[in-house]
Amino acid sequence: MIASMRVLGIDPGLATMGYGVVDAVGSRLAVVDYGVLQTAAGLPFPRRLELLYEGVNELLALHKPTHVAFEELFFYQNTTTALPVSAGRGVALLAAQQSALPLYEYTPMQIKLAVTGNGHADKLQVQQMVQRLLNLGKLPKPDDAADALAVAICLAVTGKHCLEEYRIL
Amino acid sequence: MIASMRVLGIDPGLATMGYGVVDAVGSRLAVVDYGVLQTAAGLPFPRRLELLYEGVNELLALHKPTHVAFEELFFYQNTTTALPVSAGRGVALLAAQQSALPLYEYTPMQIKLAVTGNGHADKLQVQQMVQRLLNLGKLPKPDDAADALAVAICLAVTGKHCLEEYRIL
Repeated sequence: MIASMRVLGIDPGLATMGYGVVDAVGSRLAVVDYGVLQTAAGLPFPRRLELLYEGVNELLALHKPTHVAFEELFFYQNTTTALPVSAGRGVALLAAQQSALPLYEYTPMQIKLAVTGNGHADKLQVQQMVQRLLNLGKLPKPDDAADALAVAICLAVTGKHCLEEYRIL
Repeated sequence: MIASMRVLGIDPGLATMGYGVVDAVGSRLAVVDYGVLQTAAGLPFPRRLELLYEGVNELLALHKPTHVAFEELFFYQNTTTALPVSAGRGVALLAAQQSALPLYEYTPMQIKLAVTGNGHADKLQVQQMVQRLLNLGKLPKPDDAADALAVAICLAVTGKHCLEEYRIL
């Protein structure tokens, strides 16, 4: 029997939250879906949180992933930006938690290392490797969706070799 | 007819989230409930968010407030602390948003001004005024619960005089 998993990757945000869904069967990866959840700046903040929460729940219901992977929130110097992003991440984590699926978080360096073999790879190198690993016709866009695919790949690739290295949230 | 409202006040946090429920009938205020929702530091972060979300939902179901008031998150210098608190605030705002109740947010200065008449009142002065306005036998404790009562009073008191000053989220 070949181990298989379907990973929902999330790159947290408030205005734009990236998502990517990747199937891993044995050593083969295949893209299922990717894109972004967006909330308009003009909407009341609690409504934006509600839309993100509903959006993640819809992705969970639609794609029925077996695992969920989050990119760890980068520690911004700018707290004014970081606080709303952290709230957006909070409601996305809540949706994942309520799904009762295995839930993991990776730092940007862990993701780059898993995807490209280089923890200091630049954005384009990561996107090119995501394109290659998923056999996409073009570079995955927008950036937040590409980042979400990368974190999904990170779990799928790492998971097959060293489950014990997972840092469960 | 005398206007009446029941306000759920929330002082956001991750480890400790204060809540206070206050009835306002005409110019009379009465305490209904106050306390804190607590999450243990040893629990996984997404589980802590889930517990806070469930806790706020339980308060909404139990007390059936007509309005919800949040204390605005103070901009910490320390982002490491502010990010988890912002995530906790996010799931509490989500619960309030989903209730479809009128939802307001006040700065610490607005709250102090409404409760004591002095926007620079210290913690003890605020707690003494909360005790007096709600006719409590002792100072409200812990501090987070007292803060939540204060924000609930802020909405109840301000709301009867200058609804147009509300800043809806």
